[in-house]
Amino acid sequence: VRIAIPLFAGFTAIDIVGPYEVLWRLPGAEVLLAAETAGPIADDNGALALSATATLQEIEQIDVLVVPGGLGIRRLTADARWLGWIREIHHSTRITASVCTGSLLLAAAGLLDGVEATSHWLSLGELERYGARPVRRRVVEAGRIYTSAGATAGIDLALTLAAALAGAETAQAIQLAIEYDPQPPFRCGSPETAPTAVVELSRAAATARGARRQA
Amino acid sequence: VRIAIPLFAGFTAIDIVGPYEVLWRLPGAEVLLAAETAGPIADDNGALALSATATLQEIEQIDVLVVPGGLGIRRLTADARWLGWIREIHHSTRITASVCTGSLLLAAAGLLDGVEATSHWLSLGELERYGARPVRRRVVEAGRIYTSAGATAGIDLALTLAAALAGAETAQAIQLAIEYDPQPPFRCGSPETAPTAVVELSRAAATARGARRQA
Repeated sequence: VRIAIPLFAGFTAIDIVGPYEVLWRLPGAEVLLAAETAGPIADDNGALALSATATLQEIEQIDVLVVPGGLGIRRLTADARWLGWIREIHHSTRITASVCTGSLLLAAAGLLDGVEATSHWLSLGELERYGARPVRRRVVEAGRIYTSAGATAGIDLALTLAAALAGAETAQAIQLAIEYDPQPPFRCGSPETAPTAVVELSRAAATARGARRQA
Repeated sequence: VRIAIPLFAGFTAIDIVGPYEVLWRLPGAEVLLAAETAGPIADDNGALALSATATLQEIEQIDVLVVPGGLGIRRLTADARWLGWIREIHHSTRITASVCTGSLLLAAAGLLDGVEATSHWLSLGELERYGARPVRRRVVEAGRIYTSAGATAGIDLALTLAAALAGAETAQAIQLAIEYDPQPPFRCGSPETAPTAVVELSRAAATARGARRQA
């Protein structure tokens, strides 16, 4: 199973590493971190850099594509080279997937026209404006396109993909290997359960980050 | 708040990126990825490299230390330079923490003598042989030392630290920002809940990985 995760300046690190840590454990799997050029690329906080291990041009066929999100995704949604690559590679995949705002790139490439999909809770409106049908679910399966909610949802997505690709028992053994028995200290991981003050604080922090990046 | 996460050849990527994604969001936080030398360093699967942004020598004082695990940790537990650095830096921290087998390094440095601590479920025996008192809990607080269970437990650890450092509301807003509302597809993230066949499959995969790394 050949799996590609695109890297671009301004990715969210957990969107990549959550799925990576699950998917490389699939028997016979190879995970490529693919970017426009090889070498280190910085995340959307700027303090972490991951190295690309393949270039987009090198990848013509892939079994599974997992597009991460991050503040840098919006530049890609207006970049003909990225949009063309996504459309082209999607022809060859068994599964095309996204984490968080990665779904905005799939949508901008036209893959989600009229399709049920999800994204980070703050970006569902944007997803709708691209013509997708936004749903508030952790992982959304629409044929061979899987989208998932914000950031940490990539772990749930990847375990779902692992089960689809290699069967439930293999996926379960991977879940145990990464001891994924989550015990969040608070019940506020979604805007439906978080107190209003927390939702507003989180929204304000996201707006400030977006503004800093534009500046 | 200055936070350091050590990097070494053979780290587990999610052990670093789980806490990183939470902790850099703390107001005024700076997260350093510290290694013996700057530049890209490969994980224990070998297909992902993170760049070190600081060297151990550069860090003499730090508020929070979070030691990740990975197959490479066992080399460090026999490395006088790393053991000395851990002992020295621990004098200056407000909180010294670990994810997964990172606790083996704290234990080897003598920080966990007679102290309640945890680790990946497969490594609790090793932790005990170093003189710690192993407990099966997701996050274990012992004074200013926090240890956590395998891999993904680093997210729960980091949110616990965020609340300790900046208050519950800030930690909750961060949990919402990374949409940490986990919905694992299976109930098998711990050896207590996983079917025996899955526990054995996971154990066999871990043994094979360890042997490959030794070879």
